[in-house]
Amino acid sequence: MPLTFTETARDPDCEARTGVLANSRGRVLTPAFMPVGTQATVKTLRQSDLRSLGVEILLGNTYHLYLRPGHPLIKDMGGLHRFMSWDRLILTDSGGFQVWSLAELNRLSTEGVRFRSHLDGSAHLFTPELCMDVQLALGSDIAMVLDQCLEYPAERADAEAAVALTLHWAKRCRIAFDHIEPVGGADPSLFGIVQGGIHADLRERCLVGLREIGFDGYALGGLSVGEPKSAMWDMVEAGMPGMDAARPRYLMGVGTPEDLVEGVRRGVDLFDCVLPTRNARKGTVFTSRGRLVVKNAVYARDPRPLDPDCSCYTCAHYSRAYIRHLFQAMETLAQELATLHSVHFYLETMRRARAAIHDGRFDAWSRGFLEQTRSGEGTHGA
Amino acid sequence: MPLTFTETARDPDCEARTGVLANSRGRVLTPAFMPVGTQATVKTLRQSDLRSLGVEILLGNTYHLYLRPGHPLIKDMGGLHRFMSWDRLILTDSGGFQVWSLAELNRLSTEGVRFRSHLDGSAHLFTPELCMDVQLALGSDIAMVLDQCLEYPAERADAEAAVALTLHWAKRCRIAFDHIEPVGGADPSLFGIVQGGIHADLRERCLVGLREIGFDGYALGGLSVGEPKSAMWDMVEAGMPGMDAARPRYLMGVGTPEDLVEGVRRGVDLFDCVLPTRNARKGTVFTSRGRLVVKNAVYARDPRPLDPDCSCYTCAHYSRAYIRHLFQAMETLAQELATLHSVHFYLETMRRARAAIHDGRFDAWSRGFLEQTRSGEGTHGA
Repeated sequence: MPLTFTETARDPDCEARTGVLANSRGRVLTPAFMPVGTQATVKTLRQSDLRSLGVEILLGNTYHLYLRPGHPLIKDMGGLHRFMSWDRLILTDSGGFQVWSLAELNRLSTEGVRFRSHLDGSAHLFTPELCMDVQLALGSDIAMVLDQCLEYPAERADAEAAVALTLHWAKRCRIAFDHIEPVGGADPSLFGIVQGGIHADLRERCLVGLREIGFDGYALGGLSVGEPKSAMWDMVEAGMPGMDAARPRYLMGVGTPEDLVEGVRRGVDLFDCVLPTRNARKGTVFTSRGRLVVKNAVYARDPRPLDPDCSCYTCAHYSRAYIRHLFQAMETLAQELATLHSVHFYLETMRRARAAIHDGRFDAWSRGFLEQTRSGEGTHGA
Repeated sequence: MPLTFTETARDPDCEARTGVLANSRGRVLTPAFMPVGTQATVKTLRQSDLRSLGVEILLGNTYHLYLRPGHPLIKDMGGLHRFMSWDRLILTDSGGFQVWSLAELNRLSTEGVRFRSHLDGSAHLFTPELCMDVQLALGSDIAMVLDQCLEYPAERADAEAAVALTLHWAKRCRIAFDHIEPVGGADPSLFGIVQGGIHADLRERCLVGLREIGFDGYALGGLSVGEPKSAMWDMVEAGMPGMDAARPRYLMGVGTPEDLVEGVRRGVDLFDCVLPTRNARKGTVFTSRGRLVVKNAVYARDPRPLDPDCSCYTCAHYSRAYIRHLFQAMETLAQELATLHSVHFYLETMRRARAAIHDGRFDAWSRGFLEQTRSGEGTHGA
């Protein structure tokens, strides 16, 4: 069964909607947050944790898996799902963003992008065709086209060129994708990515071009790369009218819990971000009262859980004092417990957003959520 | 209820026995292996994992907890059990071994041991009385006396002096222990430690002295510190006849799965060792066919679990290829999965030993176990 998307409810006061994304492997209730499983693992968590947390789709990083252990090995092991023992959906990014942000000496041309591995300096040429090869070898459920991510700020001429290159590559990705036989059992879909920096008209031009090619879903890329938050939301709002309402809309690399709620309000269906996992590993977790830097000395004797309103494993069993001690002692259990909590908080926020939309009370719920989250109680240990 | 020990079965062909160690907090089926929870955590595992694995008692390191976060903090947080969310038994070592092996500039005197912290170089004096204070503040179920661990090889005169100091400290520990009020809910016991290097007569002298003082259990210390295996087993065998058969016998810091089975054969009831956890974190696991260095390149495409005969979470879900990838990619999930497996293997080995003793077939079982373990299939990836 190819990917389907069905809108199931829409809020009367804004663009927020719920839906069901499904293919032969399973289904995803949207709006959904995808934890990032960079190297075939969501750092510090087991796949049984992801199931328990209610994760229905996770993101794999094509750039990382291509370099190590390599897509031929993963293909030989039966694909990424089997390799990492995960039977729910996986979306793979194109690798374009990592080449741009991690690799050394990356050089773009119409042909593709040449770069040196951040692991060993080896030289690589990533073309739209190879990008499709890799993602299909991994057995991805949702592949992303190779795109050119633009730095912020950028000249308009550069943004125009990036849109042109992104469209050229998107067409080649579509052709390559349609000609490659998926690995056994896989039933992949392909999403296009809208670029254009903070120029609404360029983004519109990009989206029109992508829709002419035709994709199973559309993503907003190149945001949350340094531009002001207001500019990001302007781009999201400007992009929505041109979107195909029958397809899922994916805001790439965003964001904080507040960003997720703001994105849902504007009609976004899918999110991914390393924030909950990366920050947790460094000792900062997201709670219903805002960020909590559990490493801080003020929590040394605090018997309360990270978030008294939370029902996750960490909050049910461990105190801030204990978790702070684990961070001080550089114990990996600190990272596990903090990550478990923050991913739970993100997933729970999405569950509550979906329930609120379903009940037609998203506007009130989201205002209450943002007010409480921004109260910052968590950061002060009060 | 103070600690009780009840022998429940004895093998007809050797000294192996089963028993039940119990206090008001819970019970431990012996022979038992105690995973090491150095800094109030068995590295990489959650307390729910320890429960699932069947751990009934774990070991806490007094030296580490005294230095960080400090026993006053743990006492304020309700004791070590509550602090780390573990409601089964905890045995705490005396810290003597860590002072000897980790601390800088340690200097012994009758008064105690002066040392500098391996964390920050701060100066400390550890006396028998402080050693008891710390362990009782932690709320330990089984405290250990402060002893002098002897290096190997050592002159006989040094071994004699170490025995004398160990006995002097043991008496002071007993007195201090009996005068300190335990933290709420705790019902602690105190074990003596037999020293004497590889001199059977000195160990006998030490044991006689300890039994005159009177303890709830007796441990064999200062072994597995570099002496030949045969010398270690000679000391264990020489020490057994003088032991109080009505009390648990604890072989400290030992060892490999084969060592555990050899120890059980000689009448040992309790073991602890960092091997399964430390080796796992470095990429070597224990299996029913011997050690397996899963980091090795030979496993890069091996679809088999770490141990095809194992029923642990890791072996039920993940391949050697995947775990090897995680080690290559320096993902902590590698350490989690390997640790889960190896601790399971240790606990399962103890379960099988107990069943074999109960059925009067320990001799045959242990020979089969040792033969299979030493076949080394695991290390060759065959």
